[in-house]
Amino acid sequence: MHKLWSKYPEVNKELKEVKQIIEKNAKCRDKVVEGSILELLNSGGKMLRPAFVILSSKFGNYEEKKARALASVVEMFHMATLVHDDIIDEATLRRGKETVQSKYGKNYAVYIGDYLFCVCFKVLAGVGSLDSVQIDTMTMSRICMSEIDQLNSRFDKNVSVKKYLKRASGKTAELFSLSLFLGASESGCSRKLSRAFWEIGHNIGMAFQIIDDILDYTGSDESIGKNSANDLKQGIYTLPLIIALENKPSELVNILEKSDYTEDDVVEIIKLVNKYDGVNKAREIAKKYTNKAYKQIKALPENEYREILLEITKGLLDRIY
Amino acid sequence: MHKLWSKYPEVNKELKEVKQIIEKNAKCRDKVVEGSILELLNSGGKMLRPAFVILSSKFGNYEEKKARALASVVEMFHMATLVHDDIIDEATLRRGKETVQSKYGKNYAVYIGDYLFCVCFKVLAGVGSLDSVQIDTMTMSRICMSEIDQLNSRFDKNVSVKKYLKRASGKTAELFSLSLFLGASESGCSRKLSRAFWEIGHNIGMAFQIIDDILDYTGSDESIGKNSANDLKQGIYTLPLIIALENKPSELVNILEKSDYTEDDVVEIIKLVNKYDGVNKAREIAKKYTNKAYKQIKALPENEYREILLEITKGLLDRIY
Repeated sequence: MHKLWSKYPEVNKELKEVKQIIEKNAKCRDKVVEGSILELLNSGGKMLRPAFVILSSKFGNYEEKKARALASVVEMFHMATLVHDDIIDEATLRRGKETVQSKYGKNYAVYIGDYLFCVCFKVLAGVGSLDSVQIDTMTMSRICMSEIDQLNSRFDKNVSVKKYLKRASGKTAELFSLSLFLGASESGCSRKLSRAFWEIGHNIGMAFQIIDDILDYTGSDESIGKNSANDLKQGIYTLPLIIALENKPSELVNILEKSDYTEDDVVEIIKLVNKYDGVNKAREIAKKYTNKAYKQIKALPENEYREILLEITKGLLDRIY
Repeated sequence: MHKLWSKYPEVNKELKEVKQIIEKNAKCRDKVVEGSILELLNSGGKMLRPAFVILSSKFGNYEEKKARALASVVEMFHMATLVHDDIIDEATLRRGKETVQSKYGKNYAVYIGDYLFCVCFKVLAGVGSLDSVQIDTMTMSRICMSEIDQLNSRFDKNVSVKKYLKRASGKTAELFSLSLFLGASESGCSRKLSRAFWEIGHNIGMAFQIIDDILDYTGSDESIGKNSANDLKQGIYTLPLIIALENKPSELVNILEKSDYTEDDVVEIIKLVNKYDGVNKAREIAKKYTNKAYKQIKALPENEYREILLEITKGLLDRIY
């Protein structure tokens, strides 16, 4: 389990149970499928989304079997999207380990993702209400749609901050929202409290995605564990670059005109994004979401889980301030 | 609508409604996504699976809204798998039209398939019982697993008839079974009758897949509307070839040793498969499944829908006798 959770033995224990559910469901006659699912599961991800389900479930009537199963659902859905995203990004590394598509080929990756989707829905239908299945699937459709939006705006130098935020909302924040919301609503929290969790997930997710994107312009391969500036090479322009491009500085526009960026181009782009204040301004926007999240978490009913949620959120979002 | 249904105005009308549900659900802000889903929907597929849902629903208490929605679910699931299969096969044509992956690229095809999966589950959760969502997702996991089996046995000259039949069962027959089963069980047919429909679907599906594979060794590009012998080039050995290989005739084994088959090789392989009786013997096996299906359909409660099912099945399965 990620060291993040060692301070919180109760959550840590629950996440171990969640892992076991996923392991049980990954079991199948194809050992490569099973192996690659287990490998991804054990590759050191933070398991934030399932932890959010567990934590928000604690605000209601905590039924461990249900909470764990729902937590496994959001993690399996997340894993399925990771496997498919890596096909699109042609990523060779994920969390510092070789990706399914790099190791076994794109074909495998397509079907392993599909298999994970189906298993995720199977577990969901086993414990969730029809209502939650509907919310889940609607959210999931929106997530797929945001991925498509991102594909469409590749190499688009006119992509706006607004469009970026919408994409981040669909791509990342929705699943954070869903995780916190599902835990709350399925453990019988009021509609109002469940909605509050949805909003908290949104703000954490937005800050999280922006910070992730900022790290592409400040981190190194080692520190972020995936191909640095990989997005950039794929033509995915994220917030720091979009902001730096706002006044269309010609030296930046000129490099971006190229269809294929060399390593030197990437270094130069990173330098220019910093020069034109893209990183600092992106940080300010992230800060706004972070502060909103803190404020909303503090307004939750007081209990030990609220404190854990607050601490975890701080740990996640204070990485760059 | 496919001309197959013009003889049956009632089914034809229902299938038009099913199409409208899919069209409504394909509606999204991304016009390429919407367009490519509609294109696939209107590319002249037979819509067998949704028709099966409609027909078996008629044996119970027919609720049109529910039956149509369930019919749209199996068709959307089928469409999602087609889009993803075409990525694996690198197919350029599907039903004589350019595939999503050929027209818009693999990346698009991955996400369009995912989007269709989610929409399919969304519609299902809106009308099905939790039981049917579970059966559905279990079946879907098995279908994905069979696709993976197929990937694994590429270029395997020792693949057995038994293994082929298992793969055909998972890849094709399961969804035929599910379609007939869902319609029956969700319209309140008895457990026994619903199970009978499952079995009928299995036998129709098995015969259908075998016949499809036989046509690869007897048809032409024009008559079957997709790249003839495409499977063969991808190293997917189907029943006629597997049977012809049973006694390991050296002239056939030698060509298959090559890793890349030329057009001439394909022509030669097709010739040898016929020479070593692969096509005839495969036809006999198909015939067994076909006869079982007829017998089981005739044992259904007598009504006009039983006759339609029988006629349709005959039309499908008598293509090669």
